Amino acid sequence: STASQRYTVTLFPGDGIGPEISKAVQDVFAAAELPIDWEVYHVSTKSVKPGEDLIPKEALDAVKRNGYGLKGPLETPIGKGHKSLNLTLRKALSLYANVRPCVSVPGVKTKYENVNVVTVRENTEGEYSGLEHIVYPGVVEMIKLITRQASLRVARYAFEYAKNNQRKMVTAVHKATVMKRADGLFLDCCREVAQQYPNIQYEEMLIDTCAAHLVQNPSRLDVMVMPNLYGDIISDLCAGLIGGLGLTPSGNMGEACMLAEAVHGTAPDIAGKNAANPTALLLSSLMMVRQMKLFEKADIIENAIYDVLKEGKVRTRDLGGTATCTDYTLAIVDKIRKSL
Amino acid sequence: STASQRYTVTLFPGDGIGPEISKAVQDVFAAAELPIDWEVYHVSTKSVKPGEDLIPKEALDAVKRNGYGLKGPLETPIGKGHKSLNLTLRKALSLYANVRPCVSVPGVKTKYENVNVVTVRENTEGEYSGLEHIVYPGVVEMIKLITRQASLRVARYAFEYAKNNQRKMVTAVHKATVMKRADGLFLDCCREVAQQYPNIQYEEMLIDTCAAHLVQNPSRLDVMVMPNLYGDIISDLCAGLIGGLGLTPSGNMGEACMLAEAVHGTAPDIAGKNAANPTALLLSSLMMVRQMKLFEKADIIENAIYDVLKEGKVRTRDLGGTATCTDYTLAIVDKIRKSL
Ligand SMILES: CC(C)[C@H](C(=O)O)[C@@H](O)C(=O)O
Ligand SMILES: CC(C)[C@H](C(=O)O)[C@@H](O)C(=O)O
Repeated sequence: STASQRYTVTLFPGDGIGPEISKAVQDVFAAAELPIDWEVYHVSTKSVKPGEDLIPKEALDAVKRNGYGLKGPLETPIGKGHKSLNLTLRKALSLYANVRPCVSVPGVKTKYENVNVVTVRENTEGEYSGLEHIVYPGVVEMIKLITRQASLRVARYAFEYAKNNQRKMVTAVHKATVMKRADGLFLDCCREVAQQYPNIQYEEMLIDTCAAHLVQNPSRLDVMVMPNLYGDIISDLCAGLIGGLGLTPSGNMGEACMLAEAVHGTAPDIAGKNAANPTALLLSSLMMVRQMKLFEKADIIENAIYDVLKEGKVRTRDLGGTATCTDYTLAIVDKIRKSL
Repeated sequence: STASQRYTVTLFPGDGIGPEISKAVQDVFAAAELPIDWEVYHVSTKSVKPGEDLIPKEALDAVKRNGYGLKGPLETPIGKGHKSLNLTLRKALSLYANVRPCVSVPGVKTKYENVNVVTVRENTEGEYSGLEHIVYPGVVEMIKLITRQASLRVARYAFEYAKNNQRKMVTAVHKATVMKRADGLFLDCCREVAQQYPNIQYEEMLIDTCAAHLVQNPSRLDVMVMPNLYGDIISDLCAGLIGGLGLTPSGNMGEACMLAEAVHGTAPDIAGKNAANPTALLLSSLMMVRQMKLFEKADIIENAIYDVLKEGKVRTRDLGGTATCTDYTLAIVDKIRKSL
């Protein structure tokens, strides 16, 4: 990438507080003078009729073409006619690895200090295969699907992530004592990949043991790689350690593109009231900026966010403050301007 | 049960520290003058040849006949010829509900205070069905089996438990947004049973949300009921909140019998050194004593254990003390004698 390269990001502002926090990201990126243009798609559950595609093909193509997408929270419609928008996007864009770093946020006090763990979650199969059926009245079979291809792919992603982010250890999280073949195959793939990374420590841990360790001593873990549902559970547990989903970034990685997202809800109670906290979406968007290799700008923005949180003078309501989303964004913008 | 009724308990002392902590339970029960006789079976992985039954039929029959079993930790043999002893016992004895109360232990400091939650885990099916196969090289299907019969049975157990233990709320933990049919059936059964308990609050929570809540604010939860693997994960998470598996009781409940157990490991490094902490097995055995409706004796023993832990003068090494397993047991026995 040359100094003059520009990027286009497909933005789905989302439902509820989505548009407000998306605006915050756009303002912050502008202040940081990032070479990024936006292509906005207002996709919403509300605008879709049952049976219609939730995300128009045009919007999906845009993410693939641009290579980058950013998504605010989307409401998942209730009822059997609709599938989760999040799952639809992951599938349609072949986003095979979901990455959720959980790092203690300066100035946000929880029971845990210096948490620094990353969940790398297989994002396309496992318990999310969608394969389930009623065998007999009152008897349901759900198929957890584990494949060598998807397991190798996510394992490779985890080790590459560890290498590129100066991480020391990758832990494969499993329950192969019970699911000997399914989780056994997942572990086989992790072991195979681990051999190609002699400088990164590799270990395996049962999912139950992992949950207990994270609660008692999270520094026991570093990068964790695991099947889909385990990642869903463990990443929320980790988010809890640092203060919740409102502070946790998430990136969905594919071969052709990545989609950064806020994983918290749409918060309909405060939507439109300029009260939302854009931190999770901001931190998610930085995963994207780093993917573009704009490391310096990403650091400047991250430091600005952390400084504002650490100082604690401008805080949104969820963190016990009285600042609006705009106040908080402006405080970050101010820090960025001073660092440029 | 009359004042003079006696009970026989089938005891599996287990491997590693098993015999020492089992002896502690026997000594404590004797001091409390419980009307309990022991029938001991030395079942161990080491004494079994591949292909042989891990638990002889005679021992299983004994638990069924007596109605009560107590099990120290058992090593699970490595290799594909053997199945986990724990799973074998649950299956052979139709132990359909696994109950793990996690209550903060006086004098044992963790990041959490006043934790008081109970995991009721479906114990016979779900992800533990044992149904998995290689569909094609590199493609494995594992079948999660959810049935109406097992779901209703465990839901009923959870509500009965709540009723009998003055609990206010039962939360069904699930991922029915993704596994609409499988976890959907589980939820349907919980809802159906909930209607028969109008005095107990009923709610539903996603497994990922549940993990985050437990870490951030465990008092948000009370009794939780869930499919097998979720219970495995959540109960270990809860154990972590109060200091680990060494302090957490576990009871497997069936129609015909119950099996109380220690869920921690066999601790081969300290086995035979009189250094083990028998607290988990002691607390598990009290679940059995209460099942016998010997509530007064159970309270006396529990208070004795808690008093010794709270005073902190006699502590085993895992809790930072220097006391032997015998010292700790004698301190409890001493308290019991004074309360009789
Ligand atoms: C919305 C839901 C389908 C999704 C998931 O289960 O993956 C969410 O919990 C997440 O973690 O992104
Ligand atoms: C030993 C193992 C099979 C068992 C389980 O997974 O149920 C254990 O983790 C437990 O929680 O009792």
